[in-house]
Amino acid sequence: MPTARVLVAWAHPRTDSLTARVVEGVRGQLQERGVEVDTLDLYRAGWDPTLDVDDEPDWDDPDRGYSEEVMAQAARAMAADAVMFVFPVWWYSLPAILKGYVDRVWNWGLFYGAGHRSGIAAVRWIGLAGGTRRSFEKRSYDQMITHHLNVGIAGYCGIQDSEVTLLYNTLGEDVNDAEAHYTGLREEARAAASALARKLNPIAPWEDARN
Amino acid sequence: MPTARVLVAWAHPRTDSLTARVVEGVRGQLQERGVEVDTLDLYRAGWDPTLDVDDEPDWDDPDRGYSEEVMAQAARAMAADAVMFVFPVWWYSLPAILKGYVDRVWNWGLFYGAGHRSGIAAVRWIGLAGGTRRSFEKRSYDQMITHHLNVGIAGYCGIQDSEVTLLYNTLGEDVNDAEAHYTGLREEARAAASALARKLNPIAPWEDARN
Repeated sequence: MPTARVLVAWAHPRTDSLTARVVEGVRGQLQERGVEVDTLDLYRAGWDPTLDVDDEPDWDDPDRGYSEEVMAQAARAMAADAVMFVFPVWWYSLPAILKGYVDRVWNWGLFYGAGHRSGIAAVRWIGLAGGTRRSFEKRSYDQMITHHLNVGIAGYCGIQDSEVTLLYNTLGEDVNDAEAHYTGLREEARAAASALARKLNPIAPWEDARN
Repeated sequence: MPTARVLVAWAHPRTDSLTARVVEGVRGQLQERGVEVDTLDLYRAGWDPTLDVDDEPDWDDPDRGYSEEVMAQAARAMAADAVMFVFPVWWYSLPAILKGYVDRVWNWGLFYGAGHRSGIAAVRWIGLAGGTRRSFEKRSYDQMITHHLNVGIAGYCGIQDSEVTLLYNTLGEDVNDAEAHYTGLREEARAAASALARKLNPIAPWEDARN
């Protein structure tokens, strides 16, 4: 049975950030469950988020192709069964570097349009939010973000299996036991990774071994 | 009476784009109504949208300051009474280059936080949308975008006077008279600029001259 493959694409200026630690946990969980992981660290890769003329869609020609780096990243994403994005929530949305990954790579004729599809079965969005759950729910930002990512982006590309996990209160406001709080956040992300792995490898050998 | 000043910040890869023409119309309208215009062409300015460590907020020190280019752009924005953003709507949101302008420049200790405010009285968001109004309203993308920009961004910075204008169907789907269609879109943007100018210069000399 071929091994499932997940692209973990993440965005944070620092490799000692909570986001980076969440990525480590997610990768470990996927690998432990027999999933092959390809990691795209957008900051260290020097990803350029600005879509320029080479990457503008030609609506009359879905097969025209784009810049070399976009074609390479599109092929890399399409080699995966699923994509997990891990990122800090900035202004209730994606950081620019990740927005620009979507702007450029998830492009017309590659991920959508004229019958084209990526072949990616599932997307998971793990967003680290500075604010508390209450502060997000008060103004429906949780719904706004979920609608944008699941319907506006993944759904537009025909990927129905898209889920957003918001890890709240990364600033630790009113938290007594900081260690337990941050362990809990990392655990939420690991659980999302674990559930994805089970879905992708439903009859993986480790399941027999554990039963 | 001091002249009102508006920063027009815009984003498009091409200077021959409809977005660029909308910017021209907006600038003309503001100037005609006695407003001083400062134009920030993010693409030609080579704006780097990626927030790096120099521009990460220090939550314990709102006065730490940021990179030279961020401090310069913040001062430039704060010299304006209002900001008009003009941009194509990509993935039902801001293009990465403009998202990264907000990520970096509208920062903690400058635009919000610890009692800091920008002094900007109003923001106008003019978004050019490829899709039709019907396609946006069908999935509430118009409300989603408006909530994000007016409440999530401007409102967070204490700027209550924020308005979004979506110029729909820039692809001209099912349009018989293309010239009338695009003239109409440019006119919508000019009307938003005109209304803003009247608000900023309520008793400007040209009003007397025209009455």
